[in-house]
Amino acid sequence: MTTTQVTLVQIDNYGPWTVTPKPRREMDLQSLQSRLFADIAEFLGHRDGYAFFTRFDNMIAVTNGVDGDAHATLQESIGNRYPVTVSLGTAVSDRPIDALEAANARLQTEGSAQDEGRTEVAGDVQIAHFDVVNVTGKYTDRLNEFDTFIDIERAYASLMRYLRREHGALSFFVGGDNVIAVCPDMPESAFVDAVDHVVADVDVELQVGIGHGASAHEAGFAAKHALEDCRHAGTAVELFGAPAASD
Amino acid sequence: MTTTQVTLVQIDNYGPWTVTPKPRREMDLQSLQSRLFADIAEFLGHRDGYAFFTRFDNMIAVTNGVDGDAHATLQESIGNRYPVTVSLGTAVSDRPIDALEAANARLQTEGSAQDEGRTEVAGDVQIAHFDVVNVTGKYTDRLNEFDTFIDIERAYASLMRYLRREHGALSFFVGGDNVIAVCPDMPESAFVDAVDHVVADVDVELQVGIGHGASAHEAGFAAKHALEDCRHAGTAVELFGAPAASD
Amino acid sequence: MTTTQVTLVQIDNYGPWTVTPKPRREMDLQSLQSRLFADIAEFLGHRDGYAFFTRFDNMIAVTNGVDGDAHATLQESIGNRYPVTVSLGTAVSDRPIDALEAANARLQTEGSAQDEGRTEVAGDVQIAHFDVVNVTGKYTDRLNEFDTFIDIERAYASLMRYLRREHGALSFFVGGDNVIAVCPDMPESAFVDAVDHVVADVDVELQVGIGHGASAHEAGFAAKHALEDCRHAGTAVELFGAPAASD
Amino acid sequence: MTTTQVTLVQIDNYGPWTVTPKPRREMDLQSLQSRLFADIAEFLGHRDGYAFFTRFDNMIAVTNGVDGDAHATLQESIGNRYPVTVSLGTAVSDRPIDALEAANARLQTEGSAQDEGRTEVAGDVQIAHFDVVNVTGKYTDRLNEFDTFIDIERAYASLMRYLRREHGALSFFVGGDNVIAVCPDMPESAFVDAVDHVVADVDVELQVGIGHGASAHEAGFAAKHALEDCRHAGTAVELFGAPAASD
Repeated sequence: MTTTQVTLVQIDNYGPWTVTPKPRREMDLQSLQSRLFADIAEFLGHRDGYAFFTRFDNMIAVTNGVDGDAHATLQESIGNRYPVTVSLGTAVSDRPIDALEAANARLQTEGSAQDEGRTEVAGDVQIAHFDVVNVTGKYTDRLNEFDTFIDIERAYASLMRYLRREHGALSFFVGGDNVIAVCPDMPESAFVDAVDHVVADVDVELQVGIGHGASAHEAGFAAKHALEDCRHAGTAVELFGAPAASD
Repeated sequence: MTTTQVTLVQIDNYGPWTVTPKPRREMDLQSLQSRLFADIAEFLGHRDGYAFFTRFDNMIAVTNGVDGDAHATLQESIGNRYPVTVSLGTAVSDRPIDALEAANARLQTEGSAQDEGRTEVAGDVQIAHFDVVNVTGKYTDRLNEFDTFIDIERAYASLMRYLRREHGALSFFVGGDNVIAVCPDMPESAFVDAVDHVVADVDVELQVGIGHGASAHEAGFAAKHALEDCRHAGTAVELFGAPAASD
Repeated sequence: MTTTQVTLVQIDNYGPWTVTPKPRREMDLQSLQSRLFADIAEFLGHRDGYAFFTRFDNMIAVTNGVDGDAHATLQESIGNRYPVTVSLGTAVSDRPIDALEAANARLQTEGSAQDEGRTEVAGDVQIAHFDVVNVTGKYTDRLNEFDTFIDIERAYASLMRYLRREHGALSFFVGGDNVIAVCPDMPESAFVDAVDHVVADVDVELQVGIGHGASAHEAGFAAKHALEDCRHAGTAVELFGAPAASD
Repeated sequence: MTTTQVTLVQIDNYGPWTVTPKPRREMDLQSLQSRLFADIAEFLGHRDGYAFFTRFDNMIAVTNGVDGDAHATLQESIGNRYPVTVSLGTAVSDRPIDALEAANARLQTEGSAQDEGRTEVAGDVQIAHFDVVNVTGKYTDRLNEFDTFIDIERAYASLMRYLRREHGALSFFVGGDNVIAVCPDMPESAFVDAVDHVVADVDVELQVGIGHGASAHEAGFAAKHALEDCRHAGTAVELFGAPAASD
């Protein structure tokens, strides 16, 4: 069974702050946002969680195994080191979108709130790590960087909508040609369908490695290894631990 | 006349490095990437340039007024402080996409290369700063964070493709509901058309402030002020320095 | 009983690296060193440990309660994000200097080595937090910043030698006019003697708050509170939880 | 002729802030301080200046060639990205201590103040880069890290006082066994005397490379090269560009 603990990290009143008393320099904001994300990624990453920058003023994290105390420490530490504060909402569900929705609702109604009692989450995380097949040959060697980026963005937009609508999965672009999807229980065939959908929709061919584990890191690490198998075997979908699809 | 100096920053051999000798922890990569971007944003921002994270392994910057020496200093400093090195390609054109394409080609053929002689660029930068009209009322108060994000991503994808195809502009999501577009000479009506296109395409209503200036910061700062005018006047397009469209 | 777990963090081959292939820019080294320390301080601090920058190429940390896995995660994460790697040696003793010496020896003979089996340490940490009495009135309002710094450095040098020689304590300047000493079991009178020694030796008057706890943070936090009591009561030595000495 | 522009960077109301509303976690403060210093070192270093962490709440920088606009940009950027603000005072003199004193006085009386009109400074910076002769053989191979640190601190304390009193030079420990001194015009014999003084005073043998240049970086880089000459030639004092003293 798959169970995902999602934490929504929200910068408090960030929009107004960025223009008070007058608009702040854009590059200061960019630097602030990305250092804040880096700190959160490091903090949660060192506890085997995953954080995604999403919109930067709202960041979504997978935090199975990270307890309420650790969330409180993160929140306090940011408040001590940044000119902004953050609120955190946490919830658990077997569908990642449902966990996110509950975490979001909790944040809205209660302000910063952790579900203190739920540090032990039964069930695994499932992570799928996608990238573009032969991105060098098909894109970066033939197109300039911006046009390559447009195609990758389109593939991402198509994939994120499909997986959210069909499965309640949460997909995040993580740089390069990589997308990481946090998934509910999904059979291997569902990933084949997702890859097929993106080809049909925007004509970009993806491959995907899939992993399970007690934490985002464990599941994601297995997914990365499985993706390496795709690259070597030339297959579109690989499950970590499963015999290679091409065998 | 509008003239844009574009710098393409590329992490050397990043893909292979991330999986050598075995896949590295994803959150370490995320932290590394965003701190590297933060450093570049700060370095160029303090010289009135703009940097965008784009795909993180490739970052695109607007560097009017930033000379070859400064580019060399940036490159050396990163080499001294990170486990990866970067290559830089710089070029100038009146259409941002043409500048990017030339910078990209130069990087491909010559490796890291700056156009040393071009530190004085004639002509202004034009920046357009877009955001979503009433994002709170229409999105964040009604949808969860991920579904809000999907809609903003769709608007961004639609806008970036439109502006690139029609005008050779380069558009970048910069967090929240904000997109910054680096533009060639474009009349105000062209921005009205862009906003109309996005509504028709993906049903998201944008507003935009437009600014000119000798540097990305100067142009972008004017654009932000103009966008504040949109918010107050309820207009879709504002030019900095122009009488408000609603007057 | 007081028991201190000390971790020595050493940048591998740092000296040679800073001049290979030729001397690197000093400010790049300064920035690298202090960001590395900041990351370590954050990592250990979030686990209730304390890290001190010491000589930057060698950093000393108090890590009661931080296990071998966490040390390994820190080491891996630094290796993934910096151009240098670190080795870690850990040991436990009731005198901090003995723990440091053992950690140091282990590092020398075995390379990076954690004492995996010792994650549970019996006994408390004792921390003393010193600062200068009326630093504003006596120093910063009357002397320029550098001459103030000279006097604070002298006080620190005098204190660190005294506490090391008499008690095997490890003292660290942590900025401003603050020195944090990691101590073995010491009676309150020993701190009175230390303060007296520094006055006699270099004519700088210190005050000190003392705290105990299961971790460096817990002990150090209590010490800070006790130091606040000194400031308010005008006393030289305060023990956290004890009735104020002036009562 | 030697002329040094000194900038004093002061965190505003830092002491009170660290204990308001109650003492903040020490490692958050350490991380904040060292990241702030790293940002300043990078900013000034990229403009060929040198920054020293000194007491962290007060940092001293050599800023020949860095104008008032750059100082203002630094100040604004920190205000946008940190929970604290900084004030800056700048002044110029042929004796570094006199420049520091003037910068300090200006900060005290006027608050943050730059001497806008003095961006062109006639005269060179002189930097001396000291380290300990055979630090490995005499110290780190024979003593534990803390006892090594005590000896290096003593040498630093002795050197900083001597050079300040005799010459009005400002000396800073920069990690490892390195001390950088910002000097007025001093003959080579004065450095021999300084090295002799430290041996006589605390029995630590230093060597020193000396460099001149239009900026701190240029002078400091020459000094580092000269120090490499000391290491190779076994001499105590080397002037960059001069024939080796042992010839």
